[in-house]
Amino acid sequence: MSVTAPLGFRAAGVDAGIKSGVARDLALLVNDGPSRAAAGVFTANRVKAAPVLWSQQVLAGGRVHAVILNSGGANACTGPLGFQDTHATAEKVAEALAESAGEIAVCSTGLIGERLPMDALLGGVDLAVSQLARDGGLAAADAIRTTDTVSKISFKRGEGGYMVGGMAKGAGMLAPGLATMLCVITTDADLPAAQLDAVLRNVTRVTFDRLDADGCMSTNDTVLLLASGASGVVPDLGEFEQMVHAVCADLSRQLLVDAEGASKAIAIEVVGAVSEDDAVTVARAVSRSNLFKCAIHGEDPNWGRVLSAVGTTDAVFEVDRLNVAINGIWICRGGAAGDDRSKVDLSPRDVTITIDLSAGPHSATVHTTDLTAAYVLENSAYSS
Amino acid sequence: MSVTAPLGFRAAGVDAGIKSGVARDLALLVNDGPSRAAAGVFTANRVKAAPVLWSQQVLAGGRVHAVILNSGGANACTGPLGFQDTHATAEKVAEALAESAGEIAVCSTGLIGERLPMDALLGGVDLAVSQLARDGGLAAADAIRTTDTVSKISFKRGEGGYMVGGMAKGAGMLAPGLATMLCVITTDADLPAAQLDAVLRNVTRVTFDRLDADGCMSTNDTVLLLASGASGVVPDLGEFEQMVHAVCADLSRQLLVDAEGASKAIAIEVVGAVSEDDAVTVARAVSRSNLFKCAIHGEDPNWGRVLSAVGTTDAVFEVDRLNVAINGIWICRGGAAGDDRSKVDLSPRDVTITIDLSAGPHSATVHTTDLTAAYVLENSAYSS
Repeated sequence: MSVTAPLGFRAAGVDAGIKSGVARDLALLVNDGPSRAAAGVFTANRVKAAPVLWSQQVLAGGRVHAVILNSGGANACTGPLGFQDTHATAEKVAEALAESAGEIAVCSTGLIGERLPMDALLGGVDLAVSQLARDGGLAAADAIRTTDTVSKISFKRGEGGYMVGGMAKGAGMLAPGLATMLCVITTDADLPAAQLDAVLRNVTRVTFDRLDADGCMSTNDTVLLLASGASGVVPDLGEFEQMVHAVCADLSRQLLVDAEGASKAIAIEVVGAVSEDDAVTVARAVSRSNLFKCAIHGEDPNWGRVLSAVGTTDAVFEVDRLNVAINGIWICRGGAAGDDRSKVDLSPRDVTITIDLSAGPHSATVHTTDLTAAYVLENSAYSS
Repeated sequence: MSVTAPLGFRAAGVDAGIKSGVARDLALLVNDGPSRAAAGVFTANRVKAAPVLWSQQVLAGGRVHAVILNSGGANACTGPLGFQDTHATAEKVAEALAESAGEIAVCSTGLIGERLPMDALLGGVDLAVSQLARDGGLAAADAIRTTDTVSKISFKRGEGGYMVGGMAKGAGMLAPGLATMLCVITTDADLPAAQLDAVLRNVTRVTFDRLDADGCMSTNDTVLLLASGASGVVPDLGEFEQMVHAVCADLSRQLLVDAEGASKAIAIEVVGAVSEDDAVTVARAVSRSNLFKCAIHGEDPNWGRVLSAVGTTDAVFEVDRLNVAINGIWICRGGAAGDDRSKVDLSPRDVTITIDLSAGPHSATVHTTDLTAAYVLENSAYSS
């Protein structure tokens, strides 16, 4: 299932020997059409990995025939030679599929700053092509994992019988400008590239871009949306966007829950803002406060750390009109202590912080995690 | 010594019973003149504690007769009643000194969101007044500690015989808009308030404001500079600024080394920037990357995490002209792998990251710490 849930797609996930040990590390997804319409969004980081630079060019054409994705190396900060490696990968896939490299997107994830083992990778392409199958979606989702403890997949059926499917990876460097991740969404609906692009931008803005686990923006973030048109269904655009939103929200949630070392999934909901931008600004500031994230880890309803983060923003608010609830208990009212903090139950994994700016009608939610010793240990020991 | 190193100052530090257990928690510093010229800088956080709001008004007059400082409670987010508590504290000190409350500055530090135990605090004022002494500087520095493991003091003698002394507290919430802290600098030089103000702003901009341990800006940050004029020396202004700079840099370093849970003191030095602002922006972005800070904790020279943080800024640079050295080894050249990373020795406590933007002549350094499991443990267990 996953990316092969919709008609018209085949996938494979193989062990190419890019990563040490026995593990799948190369995924290939092929769109057999009849349509090849596609859209993509990429990291806002100015330091972009070679595959991002390549795939941006491919997506500018609005058509993707295949996506090749590797774990075990980000191919970021590798200079002109790294870009040649990406190009050679696309050419190799194109050759195996008797196609043009101009419609082959490339994604990589793993350590920054090292060249990919190209012999292994190019050999893996042949293996992946030989294993392409209609039920290859799970193997592909498995092959793009890095520190992910589980594969992330999702799919949903739309009105009239078309499907939307997706796979994603991401566990560290989860921050906006897309939570750090690779994600491929597929559909057998029939839509032109421009409409796919609009839908993808609308959806990622309120799903992956509202996920901020550790404030660190990756060099490799990529979300692709590929349409085969194989169902023959031309969906209502609004309904299609809802389907894509549902799949992306589901994958976002899976990324959050699997974030490195996290023990809490925290929703920071800002209401009463004069604009959605203000609401996002405030929510993001709180999501990036290490002190706040430590407090939630310790199950301490420390609303003072929420207010001190809110106070660092330029959002419209008056301090003496700020209200904060933790899991529904309004422990801060009018900028000072409110209901009894002992009423707050922080034992569940899911935590909701509600911040009422009392300034306007807009709202937004950013999802983050707690800061744990496990996060530190995982990221101080992480591959050198 | 500390704040009583210069002539004209008396201080005391007492156990007023504000904090639980046996520990000093109330400090009083009195300027016996003949001058009372003073300047102050305060947190840029829009959520300001009551003592900050009060002391800003006092400092607007350019004169301070005494400073009363308590640990055991920040008196932040306590509403109008909290402001009344600060006012009552100043009035109590004024009454004991037969003075006007308008020249009494107040500083508080501790948990946000709770009222201070005013009976204990006001009783402590009488005790502190009775213990005021020329050698009270150390007791005062001890009384303002929260999670600080040591008192932070410094002093320096200027040309012609005047002195500059200082004390500071700060261990968590160390971030700009002043590293979160209380700091009082004293001098027996004779300078008017306007000159003290200019010197203090110049100095804090490049010392405390370049310290960013955890990215969290406090509600209570206060740095005061008090001049008694008791030495009779009117110093050269440039030399005086150097003295104040030396004391503030020394105290900054002490704050950094004592930052909660830190095992490394990291200097992030950005060179080759088109402006000092650009250099600070880049250095600060790196100092706030949890992944980078975890890597240094793990003694992993992970320059990819440096570049991915640099890439999130709007500073002027070209990716393929970025160079990064860790402890003097240029492991990234031209945006890609440079010298052998195995040459980097990350075992010393002091770590220097040098980032060359290759874009201009300006530079700046921001000081930060690594991110450790000890930081998480300290801040998830911290007072509830």
